[in-house]
Amino acid sequence: MAVTTAPAAWVTELRDALGADSVLTDPDVTASYARDQAMLAPAGTPAAVVLPRSTADVVAVMQVATRHGVPVVPRGAGSGLAGASNAVDGAITLVMTRMDAVLEVSPEDRLAVVQPGVVNKALRDAVAGAGLFYPPDPSSYDWCTIGGNLSTNSGGLCCVKYGVTTDYVLGLEVVLADGRVLRTGRRTVKGVAGYDLARLFVGSEGTLGVITEATVALRPAPQRPVTLAATFATTAQTGQVVERVVTSGLVPSLLEVMDNTCICAVDDLLKADLDRTAHALLVAQSDAGGEAAAAEIEALAELCREAGADFVHTTDDPAEGDLLLAARRMALPALEQLGSTLIDDVAVPRSRIAAFLDGCDEIAASRRLTIGVVGHAGDGNMHPTICFDPTDPDLRERAFAAFDDILELGLGLGGTITGEHGVGSIKVDWLEREIGPVALDVHRAIKDALDPDGLLNPGKVFRASVADLAAVSTLSGR
Amino acid sequence: MAVTTAPAAWVTELRDALGADSVLTDPDVTASYARDQAMLAPAGTPAAVVLPRSTADVVAVMQVATRHGVPVVPRGAGSGLAGASNAVDGAITLVMTRMDAVLEVSPEDRLAVVQPGVVNKALRDAVAGAGLFYPPDPSSYDWCTIGGNLSTNSGGLCCVKYGVTTDYVLGLEVVLADGRVLRTGRRTVKGVAGYDLARLFVGSEGTLGVITEATVALRPAPQRPVTLAATFATTAQTGQVVERVVTSGLVPSLLEVMDNTCICAVDDLLKADLDRTAHALLVAQSDAGGEAAAAEIEALAELCREAGADFVHTTDDPAEGDLLLAARRMALPALEQLGSTLIDDVAVPRSRIAAFLDGCDEIAASRRLTIGVVGHAGDGNMHPTICFDPTDPDLRERAFAAFDDILELGLGLGGTITGEHGVGSIKVDWLEREIGPVALDVHRAIKDALDPDGLLNPGKVFRASVADLAAVSTLSGR
Repeated sequence: MAVTTAPAAWVTELRDALGADSVLTDPDVTASYARDQAMLAPAGTPAAVVLPRSTADVVAVMQVATRHGVPVVPRGAGSGLAGASNAVDGAITLVMTRMDAVLEVSPEDRLAVVQPGVVNKALRDAVAGAGLFYPPDPSSYDWCTIGGNLSTNSGGLCCVKYGVTTDYVLGLEVVLADGRVLRTGRRTVKGVAGYDLARLFVGSEGTLGVITEATVALRPAPQRPVTLAATFATTAQTGQVVERVVTSGLVPSLLEVMDNTCICAVDDLLKADLDRTAHALLVAQSDAGGEAAAAEIEALAELCREAGADFVHTTDDPAEGDLLLAARRMALPALEQLGSTLIDDVAVPRSRIAAFLDGCDEIAASRRLTIGVVGHAGDGNMHPTICFDPTDPDLRERAFAAFDDILELGLGLGGTITGEHGVGSIKVDWLEREIGPVALDVHRAIKDALDPDGLLNPGKVFRASVADLAAVSTLSGR
Repeated sequence: MAVTTAPAAWVTELRDALGADSVLTDPDVTASYARDQAMLAPAGTPAAVVLPRSTADVVAVMQVATRHGVPVVPRGAGSGLAGASNAVDGAITLVMTRMDAVLEVSPEDRLAVVQPGVVNKALRDAVAGAGLFYPPDPSSYDWCTIGGNLSTNSGGLCCVKYGVTTDYVLGLEVVLADGRVLRTGRRTVKGVAGYDLARLFVGSEGTLGVITEATVALRPAPQRPVTLAATFATTAQTGQVVERVVTSGLVPSLLEVMDNTCICAVDDLLKADLDRTAHALLVAQSDAGGEAAAAEIEALAELCREAGADFVHTTDDPAEGDLLLAARRMALPALEQLGSTLIDDVAVPRSRIAAFLDGCDEIAASRRLTIGVVGHAGDGNMHPTICFDPTDPDLRERAFAAFDDILELGLGLGGTITGEHGVGSIKVDWLEREIGPVALDVHRAIKDALDPDGLLNPGKVFRASVADLAAVSTLSGR
């Protein structure tokens, strides 16, 4: 016999405010919203999944949540890689995907106004017709949402030339923890009226407010790319090329690296006849257009030859360029053939890339694991990916140890524990270590100032302050 | 007979900690640190001027200030245009100019580490030898300091292509109100570990902490510029060119405008044989290099001709380019020949520049004042400059009224009350109007979180919260 209990008062209030179809409590349904793509991150069970259709709906949710002390975990499509939007027991998971309108595209002011549920690719497509370009391009661009991109300050392949999400944010509408609506930023290119609140919310992983609208800057569409691929026998050669790119003032629109493990995995998957003995493969593009692009890629080819590349190939044929890039794009799917993947996300100063690649090799050897490194060489953001069988307790333990070894290595090289994926739930300890006690106190002070009851995405990014802990422990005790 | 009173206990403590030569109390000396370049902004009298030599000195100052409840006004060279560093009665004015070391220039990682007292030009010169470039270039670049640039998020002529100060900040060291030292940000290009605190401090005008060190990103040195000058009979034509630049995807490295008042004032000063009947003069540059630059400037020249320019001239001779640019650079000195100047700083969406120029004409007519408009057309940041005799009460009143009219006009066009000069002490009322009550509450909450006693630059940017007011009124009552 099925046991039916009456819904909590706050669930009833939410249904009254948003309509029953926006408030889901069936555990079979809510479970599907419990976690993102960080497969091994912990996740709780949502008490309810709420799908607002408007800013007013979000206001109602936060008012009900505040009144009843129910935590709220904001979430987009769930493409995250750090567990930032993983469910918290007893909390509302607030899914923003229904708020998916591109509200405005202005070629005159080169900006767009969007709701958070707009898929990255949908925004790209919406502005392409006007000859415009929204650069941030996380690899999940065809299904991740702008709201998630904003909350984690997403990067992608474009960053070496075009920067990250925060570089494109002009203004935001944010629903605060108590339901007040903050509008901050502007439609102008420049502006210094007051604190840069927009960039405080960007990258705050849903801990400070719920983003309900964004005004983003656009760029002119890039020109047809010229592409280069080169292989090297040593990481030192690869590092030398990256360093020379930086010091010579070249600004390619893409500069990616993959290590021998990735090369072999991709070759196995694509049968692409790659050089399986190469220690590293670099792929680069220039979108500077015409002769400028050709000159930029030729200069890069020369740097590769000077560093002793075994193979250098360039092409201005976009189709062939796409093929060369496909090897890079398939690195992660190829590594997934080797087991479950634990994807790390360390950014190091660009001069330390060779040292970082060598360090990852040493970690793979000492932990007896397969680790493939693929990364954005041009900006120093590396994704060492540990491939293992998670059903084997010993392998699992070694994989987690290697994950930590990699973070330790990155910090030791003057880097950061996360270049673009965020802290989420998987790197909370490491954040404290990277930023230290004073910065942690400042984080807590700002969190307390904006979310005094600790309702927004509690336990993510950094350890809760007292109010925050109280909110969570109350719920765990139910 | 001179009356000598014993110094306050906190002055003695500061002298003990920093040395007597770092703590100035002679009113004739301290008066020279009382105000910035916003000539008509209110300024108090510093109780002491303190010149720290190290972060440890700044820590000592903030510890003493906190212990005794003495407010602190951080200040660089005093080139500000909004009264942000103007003295507060009874407060310490903390002058950062002795901390002027360029600590590191790293071509490999394309960054520099500097103390706040480094003059903008000194940083530019320090990195030029390595073929590098620090873009933000406020017009006071040869004497303003990086600390001031950071505190106001300075722009300049470069912004249309290269952005503003915040776009170059990788990391900061900040002494908090209570003397704790916060290190935030990083040396890597990318990084999302925790809140973007660095960009919260940038542009906060000394109200949240004292910046004692900055790690800034550099760019490859720009290439030799190609320059264009064009004159137009109507603002509509000028606005059309700017709009077509934006929609056509051109990204000049400089795109400046000056109105007829400026043209005539510059012509009077330089005897440059400018077209005194022209309604607007546009000056543009491309630093894309070689043929790309020539093509970019030719495309821009074609847009000017299509818009009906009376005169279009281009040159790839840097010396001639400098001459063309000199007209723009001399606009403010030329306007100063006409009286005291009240310089406004409004940014509007780029599509509204013509409407803004026309509106300024109307304000000049209705208030019977001379207003010259010079501005960064490429990014919509305009500096209408009111020229008047401040000893005439009627003129003075009309000048202040016109200043407000201009802000009203800017807000009405979807703009902001300050594009790059900051709010300081002259636009506090207007900030509240632009950002509204919710954003103001958020500002206060963040201020209270980081500076609970309201000691840092009280009364600047926005109206004090309760704690802040208490600190100031205590001092006024002394």
